[in-house]
Amino acid sequence: MPRLRVHCFSISVDGFGAGPRQTVGEPLGHGAEALHEWILPTRTFAAMRGATGGQTGVDDDYTARGFEGLGAWILGRNMFGPVRGPWPDESWRGWWGDDPPYHVPVFVLTHHARRPLVMAGGTEFRFVTGGIHEALAQAREAAGARDIRLGGGAATIRQYLMARLVDEMHVAIAPVLLGDGEHLLTGLDLPALGYRVTEHVPSAAVTHVVMRRD
Amino acid sequence: MPRLRVHCFSISVDGFGAGPRQTVGEPLGHGAEALHEWILPTRTFAAMRGATGGQTGVDDDYTARGFEGLGAWILGRNMFGPVRGPWPDESWRGWWGDDPPYHVPVFVLTHHARRPLVMAGGTEFRFVTGGIHEALAQAREAAGARDIRLGGGAATIRQYLMARLVDEMHVAIAPVLLGDGEHLLTGLDLPALGYRVTEHVPSAAVTHVVMRRD
Repeated sequence: MPRLRVHCFSISVDGFGAGPRQTVGEPLGHGAEALHEWILPTRTFAAMRGATGGQTGVDDDYTARGFEGLGAWILGRNMFGPVRGPWPDESWRGWWGDDPPYHVPVFVLTHHARRPLVMAGGTEFRFVTGGIHEALAQAREAAGARDIRLGGGAATIRQYLMARLVDEMHVAIAPVLLGDGEHLLTGLDLPALGYRVTEHVPSAAVTHVVMRRD
Repeated sequence: MPRLRVHCFSISVDGFGAGPRQTVGEPLGHGAEALHEWILPTRTFAAMRGATGGQTGVDDDYTARGFEGLGAWILGRNMFGPVRGPWPDESWRGWWGDDPPYHVPVFVLTHHARRPLVMAGGTEFRFVTGGIHEALAQAREAAGARDIRLGGGAATIRQYLMARLVDEMHVAIAPVLLGDGEHLLTGLDLPALGYRVTEHVPSAAVTHVVMRRD
């Protein structure tokens, strides 16, 4: 059966996946850019931006793996944008410009209905108001035999973990302290939910840890 | 001024420094032995047990550093033993046999007075009922120009961090999930307390992270 996968979700040493006070200028919340610096030099990230070059190695391997075999994505609303409450209009079209790096249907969890948004390059944002199970069912139908990537943020991943629906989760522990923000794992008993660490590969920049359900 | 240092405090990927339900048979709580496996092969650990051999390298370097220049230790009571409440007698003499690996005065935080306990090899356990500041003052007096190592457990380290009294803290993030137990950092805003990451050195076994106060 196709899997629900989390990849390249960076957390700080103190466990935060995003900083506090998300704004248009700080999509990851205050101070959290440092979580993701390890991705920027990779060849895969360069290619996503249409550039050539970039580093190969462990960090690039994990970045590339996150894009293999995907048929759909699921995102929490805050990962789609900083707008809260009912959509005032359709002007917010995501953080990523006209051609977002998804190229498949992206299911956005929200409490507020909105029409699908067709972007360039095969990305289509579809807004799901029925909760995480409905979003997963829709994503499975769209993905067919391919896997679904759960992009985040932390609150969305936590919901899917608690429902035991995440099959595989790759986190990158970055050498920073945030102190506040969105914590990924606090209050979750992952072993009780069936998860164990199956990979541990440090790079110079971060420590890659993969967890899977037994 | 001599420093208060934490070394080799192992935490799980989900942030626990010990498992739940400490007993005589599981001094680290249930399931937490895996946190400390990285220390066992090191040359420093072998030497502590009077053996020769063992591995050198990053893990050994960090283990050895934890014993350099120490004039006293501070331990929380649960790190000294599984006894709770008033001491029923003086029969509990620590986890470490007649010759504990401290060789300096060790100040044990407790709510219940007890006479000092002189062990072989220079270790003397002294029981402090006046709280973390009194223990630190007594440890400073005993240590003179040398540093003080704060051994743990998590609750004790948390108290000293909140009081901004820890000068340097080395944690080793081990590739395990515990799900329950004693969390080291939850609810603490380390950047607000003045801490930042100053070293990040992964080994094959764990990721070493050092934090210092600015």
